[in-house]
Amino acid sequence: MRATILYGPRDVRFEECADPKIIKPTDAIIRISATCICGSDLWPYRGIQPVTQPTPFGHEYCGIVEEVGSAVKSVKRGQFVIGSFFASDNTCPTCGIGYQSSCQQRELVSGAQAPMLRVPLADGTLVATRDIPSPDLLPSMLSLSDVMGTGWFAADAAEVKPGKTVAVVGDGAVGLLGVLSAKQMGAGRIIVMSRHASRQKVAREFGATDIVTERGDEGVARIKELTKGVGADSVLECVGTQESMMQAIQSTRPGGHVGYVGVPHGVKLDGQRLFFAHVHLHGGPAPVRRYLPELIDLVLKGKMNPGKVFDLTLPLDQVAEGYRAMDERRAIKTLLRP
Amino acid sequence: MRATILYGPRDVRFEECADPKIIKPTDAIIRISATCICGSDLWPYRGIQPVTQPTPFGHEYCGIVEEVGSAVKSVKRGQFVIGSFFASDNTCPTCGIGYQSSCQQRELVSGAQAPMLRVPLADGTLVATRDIPSPDLLPSMLSLSDVMGTGWFAADAAEVKPGKTVAVVGDGAVGLLGVLSAKQMGAGRIIVMSRHASRQKVAREFGATDIVTERGDEGVARIKELTKGVGADSVLECVGTQESMMQAIQSTRPGGHVGYVGVPHGVKLDGQRLFFAHVHLHGGPAPVRRYLPELIDLVLKGKMNPGKVFDLTLPLDQVAEGYRAMDERRAIKTLLRP
Repeated sequence: MRATILYGPRDVRFEECADPKIIKPTDAIIRISATCICGSDLWPYRGIQPVTQPTPFGHEYCGIVEEVGSAVKSVKRGQFVIGSFFASDNTCPTCGIGYQSSCQQRELVSGAQAPMLRVPLADGTLVATRDIPSPDLLPSMLSLSDVMGTGWFAADAAEVKPGKTVAVVGDGAVGLLGVLSAKQMGAGRIIVMSRHASRQKVAREFGATDIVTERGDEGVARIKELTKGVGADSVLECVGTQESMMQAIQSTRPGGHVGYVGVPHGVKLDGQRLFFAHVHLHGGPAPVRRYLPELIDLVLKGKMNPGKVFDLTLPLDQVAEGYRAMDERRAIKTLLRP
Repeated sequence: MRATILYGPRDVRFEECADPKIIKPTDAIIRISATCICGSDLWPYRGIQPVTQPTPFGHEYCGIVEEVGSAVKSVKRGQFVIGSFFASDNTCPTCGIGYQSSCQQRELVSGAQAPMLRVPLADGTLVATRDIPSPDLLPSMLSLSDVMGTGWFAADAAEVKPGKTVAVVGDGAVGLLGVLSAKQMGAGRIIVMSRHASRQKVAREFGATDIVTERGDEGVARIKELTKGVGADSVLECVGTQESMMQAIQSTRPGGHVGYVGVPHGVKLDGQRLFFAHVHLHGGPAPVRRYLPELIDLVLKGKMNPGKVFDLTLPLDQVAEGYRAMDERRAIKTLLRP
């Protein structure tokens, strides 16, 4: 097959490589129905995170089971499945309490920007739908594999509840789906921090009630102004920089909750500032597996359409253009079809 | 009157100064029944936190109302009252959600190691008992002003629940009362990290089930060993150093809760380590005012005896010896009687 390999900064190639094979009896091979490019793929693409050798890329996927290892019991050939970017056994004590992305056996899935993918720990990782979803649902189904699950975790970690005031730091795909998640969870007011007209539009469609274009201290001041000087009840941090993290913490009211899902790059939190901020902090890699059954159900019932976040669809062999479009902010998120 | 003044590192004087007076109509003057020395007083005493001018010390207090300002309505002359180290109006939006120690009008109480004390925002800050408590209850009543309220907040912030496994980092007075709080909240197992026999004894009396003497990575490994490799559900951080904070975070299971109340000194949290630790973090200055009614009730009903944490009682004019005893770890906590 031909698949996506990152060679170094801005050097994405779609080239011939071996088909994936069952390595362990707990593996499954799936034929990809749709895959996409993650905001976190841009860190190595931009050279901020070094790539030491040619690396198969992609960790968001859904598709049809092609083959399963001898120990796999809960999924079978021909089923449509979605899985998380972290494979998990879903049986260890950490999975038991819903933190599958810290599973004691966790393994990062990679190489999903390809027609075929090996998924480890298939029983614990993959969730099958009863029927094969109609093609128009594919973008939304695909989003559940990471980006929507991550936005959902941000909102859940920030304890969004009916009627609460929510602020979202970051207008990338995760931030926008954080808006959608907050809306689904019944937030009363959703303030999104965004400077891009196209993203503001999607945010509004997803349920944002207010847009703040200021950043840093000015952004914080604006959020305070919108919340009677107190700050938001729940703030979703969906970027991962020092500035965005501090913006999130400072925009939260004392006793409020910050849910952070942007993978931190160079973030150092000052203990004393955090202490006197008096906020709750929770985040990390989203336990997507925990949310999959509920989110699949919401999509199948037509309650939400997270697939809207894909504003560019390309054939898989044009993956390099997909990266470029996201890098240059011409696209929010690129869906790839094998 | 004569009162406690800190002049500089290890220079505590008990000397003549003016009696406190009503300055604002919302003030009250109280005659101190008992006061004490806080672990946090040792930071400036040891010169780690600079003292730029002679400063009246002490912020833990209970006593009899002597005089109230013209705007004070809820407490009156002759009542026995307890208040927090942070004065608060108890009416602003931040107080309304129970974070009185971040009150929009908050003011640090100081000068409590004295026979008389001015308390700002008396209506919001002070809680009066129906009757004047018997003298044997005074140590426990005094502890509610800060140290017990802070241990309680640590346990509450760490979401201690019936049956949970709790670890406590720090065997100072706050850590020990964190143990007592966890016990009151129904913890199933309480592991305390302590190297001092006298403190281990108090911890056992307060409900600790296990003692870990190792520190740093070894301490973390020991906690993991005691919790089937997973980590504790709730960890109380009651020190405030980089080592203790990291020990707390690393001893917590993914999805677990860290409650931190040790005032951070030089703590910097690495964003990426925190991200992958997957814990909940909450803490800050304890909102003692929120807990006072409940804790007073528990003491009056004889359900707990936090006053045990005072293992040295001195007349107020021997305050300098009280500091020395705590500095040299001869005493856990010193109670002072005017």
